[in-house]
Amino acid sequence: MRLSEGVEWAVHCCAILALLPPEATLPAARLAEYHGVPPAYLAKHLQALSRAGIVTAEPGAKGGYRLAKPATAVSVLDVVRAVDGAEPAFRCMEIRQRGPAALPTSEYRQACAVTKAMARAEAAWRDALRSETIADLVAVVGRETPPAAVTKAAAWFQEVLH
Amino acid sequence: MRLSEGVEWAVHCCAILALLPPEATLPAARLAEYHGVPPAYLAKHLQALSRAGIVTAEPGAKGGYRLAKPATAVSVLDVVRAVDGAEPAFRCMEIRQRGPAALPTSEYRQACAVTKAMARAEAAWRDALRSETIADLVAVVGRETPPAAVTKAAAWFQEVLH
Repeated sequence: MRLSEGVEWAVHCCAILALLPPEATLPAARLAEYHGVPPAYLAKHLQALSRAGIVTAEPGAKGGYRLAKPATAVSVLDVVRAVDGAEPAFRCMEIRQRGPAALPTSEYRQACAVTKAMARAEAAWRDALRSETIADLVAVVGRETPPAAVTKAAAWFQEVLH
Repeated sequence: MRLSEGVEWAVHCCAILALLPPEATLPAARLAEYHGVPPAYLAKHLQALSRAGIVTAEPGAKGGYRLAKPATAVSVLDVVRAVDGAEPAFRCMEIRQRGPAALPTSEYRQACAVTKAMARAEAAWRDALRSETIADLVAVVGRETPPAAVTKAAAWFQEVLH
């Protein structure tokens, strides 16, 4: 079971966009530069975030991405689902309906016990990610990032934001 | 994010093995027949369960698989990890250590906020699967399986167990 690499990139991008002054934007190429990731792949994930209503792309020469809503209103789950989709990790193939004990499909009125156990676990995972917002992450990053990295990041922002 | 198909097969096999009389075994080919799944693939997953100490393979002409311990002592998480591995679904690539704000690796003493949020969610998922045992699933299956399927399954067991 693995989340795609794009999830990490997308969460980090949202965290950076949450730090921008109001109305400021960052182009996809700048977000790729900041995170040291391939621009073409990142562009795909930013488009997924845009389709999910998490970021907005402002057009034009000074255009770029910004968060579409307050960072307190974007959960980590929102970002994960935008990039990785919302399909369950466990997909029941209904193997109970095969083999010598099988009955016609109409006889199975309850979900399989295995599926229900897996669904409960995935709900616990989703609940945990739904309870964390991009604003929460930014607060932690603010407390825990080494001061020298904050200084370097601030210098970079000064240079690229106009 | 997706669990492998083998997880479903392996959990169902453990549930069937939990129903066997003491000391009885079922060959891999019978388990494949019962679940309508490809024998060669299932054999691979049964070997993984065996390596994890969840099932035991008895050798010989009348040999086959049985649970290596009571069904109350096998969690769904044990089975998932035996088949799918124990690696986290979110693997942090430390992209915070790239780009213009990066510092030497030794400066990052805390795990990244993103990684910690993902780890908390995965812990919630694991806790849920750890709290469900094969015995719990068998109890639910016993209550919810259509009576006609129980009758057919019992007839099949009569035939294959000696």
